[in-house]
Amino acid sequence: MATLYNRIQGRNLDRLSALSDGIFAVAMTLLVLDIHLPAAQSIHSQSELLHGLATLTPQWVVYLMSFLTLGIFWAGQQTQLNHIAEGSRDLTWIHLCFLFSITLLPLSTRLLGEFMLYPAAVLLYWANLLLAGAMLFWSWKHASSHGLIRPDTPPEVQAAICRRIGIAQSLYAAGAALCFYRTWLSVAVIVLVQLNYAGAPAIRRHRGAGSSS
Amino acid sequence: MATLYNRIQGRNLDRLSALSDGIFAVAMTLLVLDIHLPAAQSIHSQSELLHGLATLTPQWVVYLMSFLTLGIFWAGQQTQLNHIAEGSRDLTWIHLCFLFSITLLPLSTRLLGEFMLYPAAVLLYWANLLLAGAMLFWSWKHASSHGLIRPDTPPEVQAAICRRIGIAQSLYAAGAALCFYRTWLSVAVIVLVQLNYAGAPAIRRHRGAGSSS
Amino acid sequence: MATLYNRIQGRNLDRLSALSDGIFAVAMTLLVLDIHLPAAQSIHSQSELLHGLATLTPQWVVYLMSFLTLGIFWAGQQTQLNHIAEGSRDLTWIHLCFLFSITLLPLSTRLLGEFMLYPAAVLLYWANLLLAGAMLFWSWKHASSHGLIRPDTPPEVQAAICRRIGIAQSLYAAGAALCFYRTWLSVAVIVLVQLNYAGAPAIRRHRGAGSSS
Amino acid sequence: MATLYNRIQGRNLDRLSALSDGIFAVAMTLLVLDIHLPAAQSIHSQSELLHGLATLTPQWVVYLMSFLTLGIFWAGQQTQLNHIAEGSRDLTWIHLCFLFSITLLPLSTRLLGEFMLYPAAVLLYWANLLLAGAMLFWSWKHASSHGLIRPDTPPEVQAAICRRIGIAQSLYAAGAALCFYRTWLSVAVIVLVQLNYAGAPAIRRHRGAGSSS
Repeated sequence: MATLYNRIQGRNLDRLSALSDGIFAVAMTLLVLDIHLPAAQSIHSQSELLHGLATLTPQWVVYLMSFLTLGIFWAGQQTQLNHIAEGSRDLTWIHLCFLFSITLLPLSTRLLGEFMLYPAAVLLYWANLLLAGAMLFWSWKHASSHGLIRPDTPPEVQAAICRRIGIAQSLYAAGAALCFYRTWLSVAVIVLVQLNYAGAPAIRRHRGAGSSS
Repeated sequence: MATLYNRIQGRNLDRLSALSDGIFAVAMTLLVLDIHLPAAQSIHSQSELLHGLATLTPQWVVYLMSFLTLGIFWAGQQTQLNHIAEGSRDLTWIHLCFLFSITLLPLSTRLLGEFMLYPAAVLLYWANLLLAGAMLFWSWKHASSHGLIRPDTPPEVQAAICRRIGIAQSLYAAGAALCFYRTWLSVAVIVLVQLNYAGAPAIRRHRGAGSSS
Repeated sequence: MATLYNRIQGRNLDRLSALSDGIFAVAMTLLVLDIHLPAAQSIHSQSELLHGLATLTPQWVVYLMSFLTLGIFWAGQQTQLNHIAEGSRDLTWIHLCFLFSITLLPLSTRLLGEFMLYPAAVLLYWANLLLAGAMLFWSWKHASSHGLIRPDTPPEVQAAICRRIGIAQSLYAAGAALCFYRTWLSVAVIVLVQLNYAGAPAIRRHRGAGSSS
Repeated sequence: MATLYNRIQGRNLDRLSALSDGIFAVAMTLLVLDIHLPAAQSIHSQSELLHGLATLTPQWVVYLMSFLTLGIFWAGQQTQLNHIAEGSRDLTWIHLCFLFSITLLPLSTRLLGEFMLYPAAVLLYWANLLLAGAMLFWSWKHASSHGLIRPDTPPEVQAAICRRIGIAQSLYAAGAALCFYRTWLSVAVIVLVQLNYAGAPAIRRHRGAGSSS
């Protein structure tokens, strides 16, 4: 009875993109609210101010990391949606699940920043990365099997998107597994993987321009 | 005298969509601000951390529920606007009323989460669902009676949209009525109805693929 | 020297619309953060809960009023931009001033809600309405005198937009002036004017359908 | 192996624009949350209310300044993107770095407002302006050297955009250097430069209309 309604729902990919951009924008700026400047009354000299700001370093690192993670997933979702011709009800709900995991990222990044000594914090943060990645993977598989992908998308692009998610998630999982040995090592590996996905190709291309394209 | 102005106001459905997406995006991420992680000073071991996170369970459940409800209404509004060709001043204000009820949803969901034992909290939450649904219903009726619907919309789609809202709201009302018997049963029924609208058709289709289309 | 840069800046009306929708969306949902539910520990029965919610009434009224005001200005800006063909650097900055006054609206509405007994609070709230209205008026005058308005805009529409702002602002000013007599009367008149601009024409048309168009 | 993926990522400039507008919108309204009205219990007369609001003056000034800075960078980014035909993976990440510096602006502006007496606060604020400007400059250089600029962009526009950033940043740097002499003078110069970029050309044109175009 509700079949017809389900067929007409969720067609508009533009609105899904707009909602996603809004959620990413709010999430990216939300964590700044957590950075509390030192109280003006407690600061009596410039060196006290600098010292007060230096004690905020863990918060700055967490903020930078959270922004980086959000940027990676935003770029990943955007690449997918660029190759999808048409939405559907199920695709919409897969992306809403993806966005749900995105709204949790600032929280799990903060959890990691405050309790970096405990493997449980690393594993919860990793679970969040895994959930977001799994939803993106599911989204692409769904679009692929339901014929929602743009006809002009070459098959190697389809494979590249899946491979990309697979490799990134494998590296995250390997990094997370290190938390049982040393939690700081685990976090360092995850951050290095993220930095690699954000900036390294640009650097590599600059160095190797012309040689390996 | 203001008639001409009223005729030219509110034509732009794109801006209404963009405002809606912004409001939904903020509302969807706003409740995360309410989830307070345990204070770092009070945590001295990993088991204390896990216990501290476990005591937040009601907040997680409320957050999940709020996101789910917002997703359902977002998908519903999007489906409608996809079939409306042109806006009007009155339609704009009906949707602003709808968006007003949406901005209240995080608050009423939190009220429900904190005071689930009292029928009044269930009824207030239901009143919010009812208001949002009524506005969507009014919007469609208005668009239908003022010739704002796209000419290529088949008549059965029009009926399907009304029926959908009617059935969902009847189920919500039935669930809410149970609060005089047991409030937890009432909440459980409402959540089940919501899960049904969000995910169940996908599962049903997966199971019955080919048999009942 | 910077003249060329000034000529190429601010052409994109779509981005101005998107920024405006974002600011309105955040402002519309921001005030909900100010509504604090009664603490769960202080509530021991359903009647205490209802009483606790009832004492929040002023906050609900302020929220409703703030949303209404934001909706009116959003609809007004949208109507203008629909008739403007192209942006310019100066127009962009006029609208940024307009948006600045919009971000202050939740604050001045709250000021009014908390200090309704003092004429100063009413006058500050009115000053905010006046600033937003003046910016919209300036925007239209600027677009009109610099040939930015769509060629297909009939001259009577141009006059209607100016007249609309003029009449609304005159009514607001008259209402605000009453604050020296009775502040509550002043607020009541301003709210009635706003309700008139939001909903009354719809009601009037429903009653007079067919007779006076 | 990931080369193909890197080639297909980040093509969609519309989504980058939408994300940017969302981040600017949230940042522009976020600082209002920091303005705390005087508590209703501590105010017993209208003169106390006015006095309470007057003591908030530094917060108002900081808010105004923050909005102004954000407006300048928003207008600058918009002008650039209007002349870029197509995105790329690297361009996306340059703009994400730009947006990261934008989300820090409310924080560094508040730091400046609260600790205006210390050169370190002025220098940190300036470092934030410098970072945002450097990212915009890099973005344009990158687009220029990778053939991403619209073919219809005249060469003098390209030069104008670089010159604009260069001059503005030189003036900011000169202003910031004054902080070792007098911090208030340093802030005053930076604000004057910003006001010049926001509003002065409009005034100049009004005065010199017809004479120097």
